[in-house]
Order: sequence, then structure tokens, then C-alpha cells
Amino acid sequence: MQRILSTALPAHIGETVRLAGWVHRRRSLKSVAFLILRDAAGLAQVVVSEQAARARLEELPEETTVRVVGTVTANPSAPGGVEVTSPVIEALGDPAEPPPFDLYRPDLNVSLPVLLDHAPVALRHPKLAAVHRVGAAAVAGFRTALEEMSFVEIHTPKIVGTATESGANVFELDYFGRPAYLAQSPQLYKQIMVGVFERVYEVGPVFRAEPSDTARHLASYTSLDAEMGFVDDHRDVVAACHATVGGMLAAIRDLAGPSLDLLGVTMPALPREPLVVHFSDVLEMIGTATGQDVSAEPDLAPAHERWLGEWALREHGSDFVFVEGYPTAHRAFYTHPDPARPGYSRAIDLIFRGLELVSGGQRLHRYGDYVRALTARGESDLSAYAGYLDAMRHGMPPHGGFAFGLERFLARLLDVPNIRQVTLFPRDLHRLSP
Amino acid sequence: MQRILSTALPAHIGETVRLAGWVHRRRSLKSVAFLILRDAAGLAQVVVSEQAARARLEELPEETTVRVVGTVTANPSAPGGVEVTSPVIEALGDPAEPPPFDLYRPDLNVSLPVLLDHAPVALRHPKLAAVHRVGAAAVAGFRTALEEMSFVEIHTPKIVGTATESGANVFELDYFGRPAYLAQSPQLYKQIMVGVFERVYEVGPVFRAEPSDTARHLASYTSLDAEMGFVDDHRDVVAACHATVGGMLAAIRDLAGPSLDLLGVTMPALPREPLVVHFSDVLEMIGTATGQDVSAEPDLAPAHERWLGEWALREHGSDFVFVEGYPTAHRAFYTHPDPARPGYSRAIDLIFRGLELVSGGQRLHRYGDYVRALTARGESDLSAYAGYLDAMRHGMPPHGGFAFGLERFLARLLDVPNIRQVTLFPRDLHRLSP
Repeated sequence: MQRILSTALPAHIGETVRLAGWVHRRRSLKSVAFLILRDAAGLAQVVVSEQAARARLEELPEETTVRVVGTVTANPSAPGGVEVTSPVIEALGDPAEPPPFDLYRPDLNVSLPVLLDHAPVALRHPKLAAVHRVGAAAVAGFRTALEEMSFVEIHTPKIVGTATESGANVFELDYFGRPAYLAQSPQLYKQIMVGVFERVYEVGPVFRAEPSDTARHLASYTSLDAEMGFVDDHRDVVAACHATVGGMLAAIRDLAGPSLDLLGVTMPALPREPLVVHFSDVLEMIGTATGQDVSAEPDLAPAHERWLGEWALREHGSDFVFVEGYPTAHRAFYTHPDPARPGYSRAIDLIFRGLELVSGGQRLHRYGDYVRALTARGESDLSAYAGYLDAMRHGMPPHGGFAFGLERFLARLLDVPNIRQVTLFPRDLHRLSP
Repeated sequence: MQRILSTALPAHIGETVRLAGWVHRRRSLKSVAFLILRDAAGLAQVVVSEQAARARLEELPEETTVRVVGTVTANPSAPGGVEVTSPVIEALGDPAEPPPFDLYRPDLNVSLPVLLDHAPVALRHPKLAAVHRVGAAAVAGFRTALEEMSFVEIHTPKIVGTATESGANVFELDYFGRPAYLAQSPQLYKQIMVGVFERVYEVGPVFRAEPSDTARHLASYTSLDAEMGFVDDHRDVVAACHATVGGMLAAIRDLAGPSLDLLGVTMPALPREPLVVHFSDVLEMIGTATGQDVSAEPDLAPAHERWLGEWALREHGSDFVFVEGYPTAHRAFYTHPDPARPGYSRAIDLIFRGLELVSGGQRLHRYGDYVRALTARGESDLSAYAGYLDAMRHGMPPHGGFAFGLERFLARLLDVPNIRQVTLFPRDLHRLSP
């Protein structure tokens, strides 16, 4: 007999079926006992009335894996309107040791350290599993949206010979007796690959030796990266990013509906056309609204991003707002300046519900500009950038791209305060296991 | 005017269009010059007859990025039956420095070290780019096949606290002042995640400090991993792996047809039902065929795998053959023994054209079995496996899975002798850049 999933039960009323899963919960009443079985699809109620079967159920603690063969019976008062009766229950392994918390309660009310220490079992809680189903749907949507725009998937090195993007916050490793580093981002490689495919994307781990212990930072996270050639300016990047975020939200709705319901998620509002404001206009609006003089600020402080998020929702009904034109001096060396406004750049950020989610923009593409930009930032030895500069020297189109962390997106979408709550097995200053 | 790609030209005969791309090649004849433009889709022939335009083209070396506005004109003798006439050509950057090899020749006849040293530019050669388009299609097919079977995508840690899978060949890094290691595979984590989603998959980098300098080994490669719960035995894993490989081949045909044509690839034959032979039967067949006594061999030597590959093609018309039942002692500690045949296991390999591609099988799932297996292999401190053993202790179903390297699959598919030829930016004993 082929196994069916719990959600398929209503289609089999009156039939004998085979289920398999975990003992989610047992409830023993006077005349009957209930086994709530959990499988990948959901929960099934199994009614155990025969004495010998009740005795056997006593010996199968929560989380034991079992196979159940029984009759599907309609019962309007059962969850989902069906239950399994006259079951034969067979353990698929040894009786499980019960977890240190009750996975069957609606919420896993344990502290974050306890949750993370016991992640291999805690993640089985339906609400925690739902978080990662939403994550998987988000990544699927990221890929689909970019594939539809002819982006090609790439896999770039995670071990690099030089710590190019920033000297600090980089993990060093012993590479066959010489030093090497974990890549902080695929930035330089994805730009190189624009020379090959014009449009590329990558989903992969990035590594930051973050010495700060905050709710927003991890030592490793899943970076969603895209880069595209032959752009007119950063507005082409804004359009691609906007379409990508739209595709992610659509995929989450399509693929993770039950998880959204379980988590009670309010899906964010994304307008049809991207909402874009210039950095200097943001500062002016904030100055006018708050009476503070912020006109000399080189970047948006978290409070400014929050203000802007509220403004975007209030004035434009949008949970997303792009900021363009950040001052060049405060962005990475490869940032393309705005030729029309000295000091300002073609860098963009996407603010999602008042928090910076995406960073990107148009990049420099002329070899000479790179040499000047790197030299101006005090890089004396350009050989560290050899392969990257080769790509520029041998002809690169105007290009740009964007990147963001999957976990940060999930935390904001699900309104979770600590990024560790939406990361499978987080790595930080203190945590290296499980 | 919206840019169009070179492959769209035949649909625009008589119209003025805008193209953009790289100067792939210039050919100057007496009365006319040709610019072959390369973009993401292919090549376009641009006819330059006006004197001033010819002079300007002289100043745009190969690989310079340009924009071309001109008229699409039918010409049966032009490649694709169309060319662009009366062009206005505008450089999008500075004149490129010509690469150290001719990207416009049908094949890039350079040594492997030269190719790898200059990968940022060499990868632009249409045949090298085609390799990685096939790779992207293969990965897309891997995901689609598994999603259709309800596998959920996961992202597991690449930095781990203990070198559990094998003490040797592991990269050590400085993790905030204490030692940590790069994950050699997502094996333990994907098994843990079977407890959450039943079926999971991951596409991501794995790291092996391979001290050997061979054509088959890399220090890092892209691992395609899947793991599934509630299996009856390893044959369920064989079926899922077979379906996945079938999905990959279909996706390659569907998504990378032009690249296959360019590379002249003979697509492999995959039978409808998986071809499976037992390890002991393989040895017996080889003994009979060769007259050698191989009955005591603990594993298949490369020569045996080649023999088996030829046998599968000759006798069954298949480029793929699964081997089941490898001796338990020579497989990883988590390997499930075959209860019916002491000494043999439920481990599988998939041999693709005479080379081991996939490893997998059914795993142990009882906590007690893990403690015994690890202890028997001399592991004195099981705390290194704490999270993994927690998952087993708290109830795991019978499960199994498989894994293989994207690059090894590509090398075999494309009949390329060295795996570095199908890796974007390979990492090995000697190479850490570009």
C-alpha cells in the first residue's frame, strides 16, 4: 500500500490508507486515545480505541516515527473533518526520547539560546518549519524572476586569495600552508561574469567575521546576488530589483500559502512601479518633518530609514522604497558617480518596512576609472585585483546589480526581531554549533 | 529605441534597430569592413562601408563594448541570413586591450594554465560560456525534478565546529580566535533536516583540502545534495536519483540546446527504469569476463567502473548504471547495512559513462545504531556529533539520499578530461586566483 500524506485524507474517506510520520501528540481519554500524527504536509488525527493498541501507544513517546494503517472516517468535529480509525500502528525506529520542549504546543515558548542549542529538533515545530518553507519559496521566486529576465546562474569561489573588499571582518584560513580568505560577497566575480553572460545571479553563502553581537548580523548568511550589463544607468537596476522582489512575493504566496497562514503573515505592499526617491530629497523631507538639520549627513541612519519607511507607507501605500544617489564617498570603490551631480552616486538601497534590505547600483566599467578609484582609496597594490581589473581592461559594458541577505528579508517579512530566528543553524561570534 | 539581441534580428528585417555587445571580430576588405558583434544571445554581422565609420572601427579593438544602430537587411550569404547595414557605432567604454588569445576563433587553443590564468576573459569564448550555460541548465533541472517530488531547499552551515566526516582533508580557519572548519559536505545537516521536511535538497559549495593534484579533484566544488525520509530501503533513493538525473538531462535539452549544438555534445542514454546491479554481481561479471579473481575486492577500482560502464552501454544501451550493496566496512559510518546479507550495505553509487558520479544510499536512523557505528570506528568523543545524534535520539524515520558534484557531472557529460575545464574559477593545491 502506497503511503499518503495527511492532507490527502479527505479524498480517501471510507478507504484503508497508510500514513507515516512522527508522533506529534498523544491524548488519552477514558474510552479512547488520540494519536496526532505529523508528516511533511500537516497533522492527522488517529483514533485508538482497542485496549491492546492503546497500551502500545503508551510505549511510543512524542517524536517516535511510526507507520499507521487504518480507515479514513469522516468526523465533522475532527481537525480537517476526517480521522483515521481502527489503526494498526507500527514504530519505524526505537521509541524517541521526548524533546526538551513540547513541539505540539501552538508556539514554542523557549528562549532563543535554548531554541538554537536544540535546533535539530526545535525546527520540527510547525511554525519554525514554516519559516524555512517561506524562505525556500522566496529563493525559488528570486531565481524564477531572474531567469525570466535571462539571468544565468553562476557559482563563484568562496575561498579567495586576497581580502579585497575590506581588510577587516574577513575569515582567514590555512590553504595548503598559505593564507586564504572566505569570500565576503561574490561582488567582484559577478561583475567579471557580466563580461561572459551579460546577466548573472548567484544564491550562496557569504562570510563576515562580524565582531559585533547584534540581532541583525551573522558570521555567514545566504546572499542573493544579481548583476546585469548594458544598463543605461542605475534605474535599470532598480527596475530589475523591483521585478525580482515582486517575483519573490508572488512565489511566496503561490508556494507557501499554508505557511503564511500558520505564521499569520501580512504580506507587504509592493507598488506596480518602483517608488524611488533621491538621497538628498530624503534628507530634505526628514529635515522639514523633524526640524533637525540633517542636510550634511553622509548616509541614512537607522532612524532615517524608519522615517522613510513610514513615509512610503503613509504617502504611497508601499512597504518598499528605493533610495538613489547616495554620496559616492560612503559607498564601495566600484560605485558609479552621478555625472550630473558631483559628490552623489548611482548607488541604490531598497528600504523594506523601514530597514535597508538591498544594496546595489551602477558600477564603474572603465579600467582607468577603477585604477583611479582604488588608488584614491589608498590601495597601493592593485595586483590583489588582477583578475577583476583584467575583465575591465578587456572591455566591460556599463553594468550594475544588487544583493541582499535571505535571512534579513525573512526577518523583515515575518516581523521577527532577531535574524537568528529565521536562520537554520546560525553562526555568530559565540555560536559554531549545532 | 529598445536594444534587441542578435538572435532577434531576422524578425526585424527592414527596420532600424539597436544592438549592443562586444567587438568579437573585425574584418577589413577592400570596399567594406565587417564588425562581428557578440552579445548574450550570439553573433551579429554589421557591414561598415562608409569611410568615416570604417576609420572609427579601426579604433575599436576586439572586446571593446559598443552600441550599434543600423538597418536590418536580409542577405542569404550572411550568418543567419541577416546583417546590419548603415550602422552608427558608438563605444560604451574605452577601447579594450585585446586579450592574449583570439576569442573569435572556433576553439580557444591555449594551454590549461593560460586559460585558467586568464579565466575572466577566456570564459567569454562562446564554447567556454556554453559549458557554463549547460551547467546552469543542469542545476535548474536538478531543482525542478526534486521540487516536483516535494523536496524542500535548504541552506546549511559551511563553517562547522568539528571535522566530523573525516579528520583529514579539511580546511581549518580562525573563527574569532578559535579553530573551525569548512564543511566537507552537508551530509549531517541534510539528514537532520529530514526530521523537519522529510525531503530536502541543497546546491552549494563544499570544501576538501585535497593534497593530490589530479584531473578529478578540486579544493571546492558545487555539491548537489538530496535526502529523503520514510524510505523502504535504498531502492527508493535509486528511484529518486534516477528521476533527478532524468530531469537534469531534460532541462539541459530544453534550456541549453544551442550550447549543446555548439559543443557537439552527444546526450547520454538514460533508460526509462534505473539499471541496478549488485556489487557482488559486478565483481562476478568482471571475474568471468576478465579471468581475474576480483571476488575479494572491497570496492570498485576505476578500471572496474570503466568495465561496468561499457557493459551497461553494450548490454542495456545505458550510459548510467547504479551499483548497490557495497561492503559496509568501506562506506561512511552512517551507511545502513543490508539486513539480508551480512557485510554488504544499502549504499549505492551511480556510474556515469564508466566513472562514479553519485554516491548515496540508505542511512542508519536509530540512535543506538549510530552510537555503535561511531564507537566501532574508533570515535571516542561523540560530543562532536551532538546535534546530529540529537536528531536521531528524538525520532528519525528510515531515510537515505545522494550527492554529486556539478563539475564532475559536466566533465563526464561534455567528455572533458580535466574538471578544471568545466569550473568557473577552480581552486586546487596550487591555484587560489583569479
